[in-house]
Amino acid sequence: MSDSVSPLAPKSYPDMPAIRGVRMATAAAGIKYKNRTDVLLMVFDKPATVAGVFTRSKCPSAPVDFCRANLSHGVARAVVVNSGNANAFTGVRGKAATELTAKSASEAVGCGKNEVYLASTGVIGEPLDATKFAGVLGDMNSGATGDFWLEAARAIMTTDTYPKVATRTAEIGGVNVTINGISKGAGMIAPDMATMLSFVATDADIASPALQSLLSAGVGPSFNSVTVDSDTSTSDTLMLFATGAAAEDGQARIETADDPRLASFRAALNDLLKDLALQVVRDGEGARKMVEITVTGAESDAAAKVIALSIANSPLVKTAIAGEDANWGRIVMAVGKSGEMADRDRLAIWFGDVRVAVDGERDPAYSEAATTAVMKEQDIPVKVDIGLGSGRATVWTCDLTKEYVAINGDYRS
Amino acid sequence: MSDSVSPLAPKSYPDMPAIRGVRMATAAAGIKYKNRTDVLLMVFDKPATVAGVFTRSKCPSAPVDFCRANLSHGVARAVVVNSGNANAFTGVRGKAATELTAKSASEAVGCGKNEVYLASTGVIGEPLDATKFAGVLGDMNSGATGDFWLEAARAIMTTDTYPKVATRTAEIGGVNVTINGISKGAGMIAPDMATMLSFVATDADIASPALQSLLSAGVGPSFNSVTVDSDTSTSDTLMLFATGAAAEDGQARIETADDPRLASFRAALNDLLKDLALQVVRDGEGARKMVEITVTGAESDAAAKVIALSIANSPLVKTAIAGEDANWGRIVMAVGKSGEMADRDRLAIWFGDVRVAVDGERDPAYSEAATTAVMKEQDIPVKVDIGLGSGRATVWTCDLTKEYVAINGDYRS
Repeated sequence: MSDSVSPLAPKSYPDMPAIRGVRMATAAAGIKYKNRTDVLLMVFDKPATVAGVFTRSKCPSAPVDFCRANLSHGVARAVVVNSGNANAFTGVRGKAATELTAKSASEAVGCGKNEVYLASTGVIGEPLDATKFAGVLGDMNSGATGDFWLEAARAIMTTDTYPKVATRTAEIGGVNVTINGISKGAGMIAPDMATMLSFVATDADIASPALQSLLSAGVGPSFNSVTVDSDTSTSDTLMLFATGAAAEDGQARIETADDPRLASFRAALNDLLKDLALQVVRDGEGARKMVEITVTGAESDAAAKVIALSIANSPLVKTAIAGEDANWGRIVMAVGKSGEMADRDRLAIWFGDVRVAVDGERDPAYSEAATTAVMKEQDIPVKVDIGLGSGRATVWTCDLTKEYVAINGDYRS
Repeated sequence: MSDSVSPLAPKSYPDMPAIRGVRMATAAAGIKYKNRTDVLLMVFDKPATVAGVFTRSKCPSAPVDFCRANLSHGVARAVVVNSGNANAFTGVRGKAATELTAKSASEAVGCGKNEVYLASTGVIGEPLDATKFAGVLGDMNSGATGDFWLEAARAIMTTDTYPKVATRTAEIGGVNVTINGISKGAGMIAPDMATMLSFVATDADIASPALQSLLSAGVGPSFNSVTVDSDTSTSDTLMLFATGAAAEDGQARIETADDPRLASFRAALNDLLKDLALQVVRDGEGARKMVEITVTGAESDAAAKVIALSIANSPLVKTAIAGEDANWGRIVMAVGKSGEMADRDRLAIWFGDVRVAVDGERDPAYSEAATTAVMKEQDIPVKVDIGLGSGRATVWTCDLTKEYVAINGDYRS
């Protein structure tokens, strides 16, 4: 954790209502840090439906393997999240640690091990001592409460400078439902996935396959459209749980994602996912500027996203933005190296509303002063028109500062 | 240019012999900087054969377009290189600037415009005032001399902290020949190509198609295996010229690259290209550590190179190395995100001779102290065995320091 909060942090946190059927507690299990909460237990008193999206790393952490295996069962009763140790690249002992943690949680909550989900964040390659969970999970289950979302978000922070929470309401067939989510991020943030850990819960009554479809579709324009440093964690985990408590209010269970009654819920979920993903970028390690990059006129939406991420991940673009330098030549460079079709003589580039380049050269009406004013803002919109087709994408990133280097140059010490 | 020389700079420069048939001169044309040389003229008094490899950027600079077009002619009489302005993304005026520069050079040297090669390095997107060359090229041609390689290397520097030169000798059919090369680099360095500009000349008598085959093959394990910041320039240019003067000593002209008499020349050329490429990395912007990354046991050589570059371009790996932190978990992360086949339970990782991880977890014999000692060195060898096949690759990079951010945060100002 950093001592100073990101200048891009939200000015205030929303009131996070309880979600019926969800209780949470935190504890200090002493995984790595002393005298700070480092484990979160989320309990669903009745079986919840569940969906998950995980890192595409070829070297995923043991908890990611564990969650993927349980997902086919489709039922969640408990989630255990720890910070301080990622339980990644820990070999046979890593798998044993997930089994032991799940056993402790299943005994504490009274459920099957295949109804437990796990996530770990922190250092890679260090063995995780899962015996430490056994002593705390029982008490955590007894003391878990519903009014706990902000504290839960705090418990899973590592180098984050502020907790990330979001809440939305929606209606399904005239019945009001609520969606809450928490995230942690800060470094090793890139598609796919962008956040290290994010947990979303709702009281809506939605079957697991429908929930999975909603989540898989929602992750594209949100968590998979943000990047801090192009580095993909071994542990990235986004999970969505539905307790079904809204059935008590008469909400008819939704079985498939194409059910038209999901329109409001889908919109609210997508909005919440984007909110959480952007909070992750705004807390990118060392970030001082938030950058929204929109690419239009590419050959396809997919090509537009490749180009946008090439710009967003370019160290030279990101350092220029850190220096408040409207160095649009580096945008051209990043378009050119993306590998996607581009014609330099059709390119147009904007910083904010200032068009700095058009038709393959500097805009004749280009004003350095106007662009400099844009660059001094905290939020920098960059737009690039490729001029070839109708493909379009927007991604978000932050600047690359000396603080990023400082934070990551001695993370383990 | 930086005030302080990279700590990784060579301790001394080799004596650079003249290459028969090559003369050079520099001048201060006032392209961007005042009171410093910013233009280099290389003259071949008799037509030289020529080969070139250029950026794969989809938005190449005007000089790159110009060189590519002339290459089919296969003859070189003059090369004009300027620093301070890349003449990239300069539209119709950029093309006009190359035409005017070539016209001035052809008049000064007395050759065809299609025998002139051009390269420009510096800021992208600013119009290049090519009229400034007309006044200096005539005098430069008159005063050009063969004993000028180090000065030539100095003239093409931008953010480089030292000039990059290399020389080798070889024999072709019993006749001794010499190869000299100069490079500039420093930032916006990634495959393909890795250097922004490099010019190599020899007195050997080799036909252009054979020369091109040698150069295209030689670039893979040298310039295309180094990366500073993953950013590919719009201007990357590597050219090889052969004056044929060794024919005077009885060297029989080589027509094809598979001629067995080329063995010594090929080895010397490849060694020189690697030397220059590594000098570029050792002068990476803000570099304090040189990192050699060898990947073995991948599915193929190509897969090994993708994995090695994923490691080399990871900001988290590079900042850890800057912090002298043996954070091998980030190596695992970079292997995992590369997209190539990997099995975390077969991975082994070494820093120097210290094996820190094996069989998917920390090496039981792992010594933090021994690894820390390796990390304090200036040159850090990293080896990763994937354990799946026999694919192998080595790439070179440098660490990512606060100085990189500082240099690139206000490059234009």
